[in-house]
Amino acid sequence: MNEISSTKCFGGTQAVYAHESASTGTQMKFSVFTPPSALHGAGPYPTLYWLSGLTCTEENFITKSGFQRVAAELGLMVVGPDTSPRGETVPDDPDGAYDFGHGAGFYCNASEAPWSVSYKMYDYAAAELPALIEKEFPVDTARTGILGHSMGGHGALTIHLKNPEQFRTCSAFAPIVAPSQVPWGKKAFGNYLGKDETVWRDYDATALVGARPSEAEILIDQGTADNFLAEQLRPELFAAAAKVAGQKFTLRMQEGYDHSFYFIATFIEDHLRWHKERL
Amino acid sequence: MNEISSTKCFGGTQAVYAHESASTGTQMKFSVFTPPSALHGAGPYPTLYWLSGLTCTEENFITKSGFQRVAAELGLMVVGPDTSPRGETVPDDPDGAYDFGHGAGFYCNASEAPWSVSYKMYDYAAAELPALIEKEFPVDTARTGILGHSMGGHGALTIHLKNPEQFRTCSAFAPIVAPSQVPWGKKAFGNYLGKDETVWRDYDATALVGARPSEAEILIDQGTADNFLAEQLRPELFAAAAKVAGQKFTLRMQEGYDHSFYFIATFIEDHLRWHKERL
Repeated sequence: MNEISSTKCFGGTQAVYAHESASTGTQMKFSVFTPPSALHGAGPYPTLYWLSGLTCTEENFITKSGFQRVAAELGLMVVGPDTSPRGETVPDDPDGAYDFGHGAGFYCNASEAPWSVSYKMYDYAAAELPALIEKEFPVDTARTGILGHSMGGHGALTIHLKNPEQFRTCSAFAPIVAPSQVPWGKKAFGNYLGKDETVWRDYDATALVGARPSEAEILIDQGTADNFLAEQLRPELFAAAAKVAGQKFTLRMQEGYDHSFYFIATFIEDHLRWHKERL
Repeated sequence: MNEISSTKCFGGTQAVYAHESASTGTQMKFSVFTPPSALHGAGPYPTLYWLSGLTCTEENFITKSGFQRVAAELGLMVVGPDTSPRGETVPDDPDGAYDFGHGAGFYCNASEAPWSVSYKMYDYAAAELPALIEKEFPVDTARTGILGHSMGGHGALTIHLKNPEQFRTCSAFAPIVAPSQVPWGKKAFGNYLGKDETVWRDYDATALVGARPSEAEILIDQGTADNFLAEQLRPELFAAAAKVAGQKFTLRMQEGYDHSFYFIATFIEDHLRWHKERL
């Protein structure tokens, strides 16, 4: 693990690291924020994993959301992986589209060639990276949660529902809740997972919550002015499945907010406090 | 004036506009944040002008500083121009360097060819843009201040000292305080203003404060881990001149902070509250 950068921010430290990932077979970057008292060797800290959306790297959330102010106050560690394997050897969307390939790993383990060689983002985000973080940083392993935006909200929901003991709290901003039923997800899963749509259910939050709801309460914020709301996000599908399954769930429709980081910046404080109270 | 974007953020509106500038002869972009109550026609609002540093556009501050949270709470309008004229017709650094030409207007009026055609950033930032803002937005013209970062801190200091009645409050993050004495400023002023260094003094905060201190108190925050501190920034030069001139002045050396937006994000709340109290 190599430190790429380390910068003081709100009294804590915002760092970026790189390491060779066994899951993807590539070098992966990730961000870690440690609270002010970590400079004096304190901890362990309750820890949140942030998963970003399409086109993002490990940089977008740490430069645009302003989360560090609240994480410093609450004494939270926050970890953010990149959104896909990258590099010249990693296959990308043949048309260079933004919604598949580089920057669009969809937090699943691809089974189909040529994607299956390196697109193992479920293994990476749910297991390999947390194991590395636990080894290298002062994590309170009993107090770990997950959250994300858009494709990263899909990642947070599915990784929580599949690992509710490991990622005990879960929230999302404008998540893709039913990838099997929307264009972004159909394209990604069709390529990464193949034609058998029954396999897709294992990475579809709406299907998962019906099959195995968690004991936790799930929070989703969704802007009403989000251009992707009606076609790609469709939170009502998850809400209906959660209701049937008895999943504790809050959906807040935020009037006038769009899909951008201005929306995330506005409500990230709410989410961090919400996680901290429950961890 | 055309609206490029308008996004809800912390209940207010973060917008970007473009217009044809008479000062530069080019299309210029600028950002405007209006507080939540502006959606209902309230105002006028005390208004701050933010000037960005080398390489920045009107975007960096609005996406990376997180200022909107505090501006929404305090009921401040915040306006941010681009840092230079741009476009294929606008001459740029012949070597493509980051510290001159596009993204590096230094908030001065160039007198030397070929720069003098479009590099009129003093006229633009100190007069043309404020006049447009007053015409189009609910500004409390008696309550206007200015602040900025690095090259933009230089802009804020010089524009305040030359127009203390118009820009009544002034603060800066890691400003270039003595451009006539440091490499960045010598390169820029030598090209924009020519070889006669006595002319440079009109755009040099350390020279200006000696010649005409303002009645206001000036605040500067400077990180001690800033790579540019010793060679390019040298706040001690301004501090010494301010002391001799009787300028009210506070320099806060912030332990461990660098030159990045993480530093700005950490202290922007302090600065906005400081301006609001004095406006």
